Amino acid sequence: MPLVVQKYGGSSVGNPERIHNVARRVVETQRAGNSVVVVVSAMSGVTDNLIRLAKEVSTSPTDREMDVLLATGEQTTIALTAMAINSLGAKAVSLTGAQAGIFTDGIHTKAKIANISPRQIRKHLDEGYICIVAGFQGQTIQGQITTLGRGGSDLTAIAVAAALRAENCEIYTDVDGVFTCDPRVVPDARKIDVIYYDELLEMASSGSKVMQSRSVEFAKKFKVPFEVRSSFNTNRGTIVKEETPGLENVVVRGISLERNQAKVTITNVPDKPGTASRIFSALSDANVIIDVIVQNVSVSGSTDISFTMNGDELTKLGSLIDDVAKEISAGKVIKKSGIAKLSVVGIGMRSHSGVAAKLFECLGAGDVNIQMISTSEIKIAVIIDESKIEVAAKLAHAAFGLSEAAADQK
Amino acid sequence: MPLVVQKYGGSSVGNPERIHNVARRVVETQRAGNSVVVVVSAMSGVTDNLIRLAKEVSTSPTDREMDVLLATGEQTTIALTAMAINSLGAKAVSLTGAQAGIFTDGIHTKAKIANISPRQIRKHLDEGYICIVAGFQGQTIQGQITTLGRGGSDLTAIAVAAALRAENCEIYTDVDGVFTCDPRVVPDARKIDVIYYDELLEMASSGSKVMQSRSVEFAKKFKVPFEVRSSFNTNRGTIVKEETPGLENVVVRGISLERNQAKVTITNVPDKPGTASRIFSALSDANVIIDVIVQNVSVSGSTDISFTMNGDELTKLGSLIDDVAKEISAGKVIKKSGIAKLSVVGIGMRSHSGVAAKLFECLGAGDVNIQMISTSEIKIAVIIDESKIEVAAKLAHAAFGLSEAAADQK
Repeated sequence: MPLVVQKYGGSSVGNPERIHNVARRVVETQRAGNSVVVVVSAMSGVTDNLIRLAKEVSTSPTDREMDVLLATGEQTTIALTAMAINSLGAKAVSLTGAQAGIFTDGIHTKAKIANISPRQIRKHLDEGYICIVAGFQGQTIQGQITTLGRGGSDLTAIAVAAALRAENCEIYTDVDGVFTCDPRVVPDARKIDVIYYDELLEMASSGSKVMQSRSVEFAKKFKVPFEVRSSFNTNRGTIVKEETPGLENVVVRGISLERNQAKVTITNVPDKPGTASRIFSALSDANVIIDVIVQNVSVSGSTDISFTMNGDELTKLGSLIDDVAKEISAGKVIKKSGIAKLSVVGIGMRSHSGVAAKLFECLGAGDVNIQMISTSEIKIAVIIDESKIEVAAKLAHAAFGLSEAAADQK
Repeated sequence: MPLVVQKYGGSSVGNPERIHNVARRVVETQRAGNSVVVVVSAMSGVTDNLIRLAKEVSTSPTDREMDVLLATGEQTTIALTAMAINSLGAKAVSLTGAQAGIFTDGIHTKAKIANISPRQIRKHLDEGYICIVAGFQGQTIQGQITTLGRGGSDLTAIAVAAALRAENCEIYTDVDGVFTCDPRVVPDARKIDVIYYDELLEMASSGSKVMQSRSVEFAKKFKVPFEVRSSFNTNRGTIVKEETPGLENVVVRGISLERNQAKVTITNVPDKPGTASRIFSALSDANVIIDVIVQNVSVSGSTDISFTMNGDELTKLGSLIDDVAKEISAGKVIKKSGIAKLSVVGIGMRSHSGVAAKLFECLGAGDVNIQMISTSEIKIAVIIDESKIEVAAKLAHAAFGLSEAAADQK
C-alpha cells in the first residue's frame, strides 16, 4: 500500500473546525488506498502564548525548559487530530516526537534530527492506524525533550517521509503552492507546478517564505520529493524535487522579493588580509544576520565593502560598524534603510547567458536604479529602492514571460 | 541530605505569580539543606479547557488521546516552575511522568501506578538539581502516555516519596490542613495536628475532600507519612501517618459532612437469596454510585432496603429501581432528596463504647431526627435532613469536645 506523509501547519489546525477539515482529508486519503502519516504543528497562536507565559515567569528561561513547554503545543494538536479522525470512524493514534522515534542532538530550541527510528510508526501503520506525529519536536538519546526550531514541523514531515521511504510527502499550508512571484505584487503571477530543490532554496533564502531553507536542504540531501499545497482547497500544489538530467530546464523559474532591507557601506577599506574578516566576525559576534555582501576589486589599495540585512537588524548595529571602521582605518560608514531585494531564480540560468542583461535592461527601461548586484549560479539578485519593488517585480515577471501557461515553461 | 517531596495543586500554581511563590518556597527548602522533588498539577482551569477542546473535536474522544491531551497540562506547569526556580538562581530540571520513571498499567484516564524507577530523579538530585515532576501522569512500559485520574497528582507525590524513601512528603493545597469539621459550618473547628491514615480515609470518603481516598490508601500501604498544608502561608499543616501502637488514641478525631444526598427505600423486599444482589448489580450496571446501604433484620419474611447516593445520581436512576422492585416482587419505592450525612470519625472509638450513644443523645436533644445509621469500626454515620446539618454539626462538635486545644486531644 502506498504511504503518504501529510504535514499540516498551525493555521490549518487553528481551531476545532479546521482540525475536522484536516481529519476529513486524512481519512479520504486513507480510504483512497494509502497508509497515512500526518505531521501537525501547534495550533496557530498557541506557541506564542506559551512563549508569553514563559516570559512572565522568567526573563531568561532556559532552553531546556522552553522545549518542555513548547512541546506541549504539538502534543495538544496530535491528540485533538487523532480524536477528530476517530470520530469519523477511522483508526488514528497520536505520537509525540519521542514516541515517533525522532532522535535529535541536544541543542535545545534548535536541535538537529540525528536519526529516526520508525518502529512505532510502522507497527501502528501495519495495524491499520493513521499515525499523527507531533512536528517540531524530538528527544535526545538520554530522553530529553527537544524542539527543532523554526520550520521544524516541515522538517519532521520530510525526515519521517525519508525514514519510511514514503511514496508521497505533502506539505499543507495556507497558500496554493510556490508562485512565480508574490501574487499580491504581480497579479498575473502563477503557481509553479514543478520546482527543483536548488531553485526553491534560492527562492526561500530570497524571501519567498513558503518553507524554511533547512527543510528543503534536508529533502534535497535525502532525495525526498514533496508537494507544497493548500489545506483549504483541493488544488494540486507545487512539486519540489530533484533536478532531472536531460530535460531542458526553464531559464527563470520565479522571482522572489524581500522588502524592509538595509544596507551598510564602509568606504576606503584598506585592501589587506584580515580586514573583511574583522568586519564580519564583529557582526557575527553581535548576532547580526547579514544577507548580501559585495566587495569590488581594489584598484587603489582600498575598496568599498557593502552588505545588506533585514531592516530590523540595522538597529542592533549601534556604533559597532563605526568602531570597527575606525579600528581598521577605513573611511566613512554609510547606513541606508528603505531598500529591497529582487531575486530572479532558475536552474536554466546555468546554461543560458543573457539573463542578467535582460534583467538589467528591463529594470533600466523602467527607471529602476540598481544599487547592488549579487549572483549565484542559479540566481541574480539586485538591491533597489524599496519604493520601486512593485514596479521592478512586474517588469521582470513580464520580461521573463513568467505569466505564461505552465505548459510553455517546460 | 534529607529528601523532601512537595506537591503543589492547581490553585497553588494557578498563574505566573503563584508559580513564583511556589518557586520561592522550593528554593528556601533546598537552601535549608534538603534535596527537593516537587510534584505539580496543571494550572487551575487548564484541564477543564483541554476537556472542553476535546469535546469540541469529538463527542466521544478515546481515553488514549484524552491522556495525550491532558498530560500537556502538567507538562506546561513543570516547565514554568523549573524556569521560575532557575530565575531565582537555583538549579531545577523538569521531568514528565514518563521521564520521572513513573510506570503505570494501560488503563487510560484512570491508570494505576505499577512501579517507579527513580533513576533519572536520583541522578538529577545527585547533581544538585531540584526535580520538578509532572503529577497525574505516567507511561506504560510500551511508552504510551497515561493519566492517573482524579487526585492523581497527590498519588504521584506519595508514590515518588515512597520510591525515594523521602524523609518528608508535603501536600500543599489551598486549605491549612484537615479540620475537626468544616470551619464554614462550625466556626470553632480547629486544624488537626496529627491524624491516622484510617481516620483520614473515613473523613475523605465522608465528604472532607482534602485528598482522594486512593492517595491516602497508597500512603498507608507504603507507610509514607505526609503533611497536608497550605501553599499560601507558612503554618504547619496536618500530619497524616500510621497509627502508633501504645499511645492512647483520641476517641473522636473529626466530623465529616456531606450534603446533597438522596435516599431510596424499597419496602417489603422478599427475604430470599439474590434479591439484594439483583438490586445492586442493576445500580452498578447503570453506573450509579451509591454510598450507605442499610437493611434491617427481617422479621416477617420481607424487609426494607435503603441506600443513599449523591443527589445528582438520583436523576440517573429514572425508573430503574421501580422496575427492579416490580421484578423482585417488592413493595413501594420511596425516593427522597434533600438529606445529608454526618460522620463522626476516630480510631479511639474501637476501644471506647458510648460514642454512638453520645452522638444520638446530642442530636436528639437538638431535635435532629436520625433517618439512617451506618457504622464502621472507626466511624458512625447518620443520615439526617439536609436542613439540620449545621445544627447537628455544631452539636456533635461540641459534644465530643473537638474545639478544645490540640494538646488536650493527645
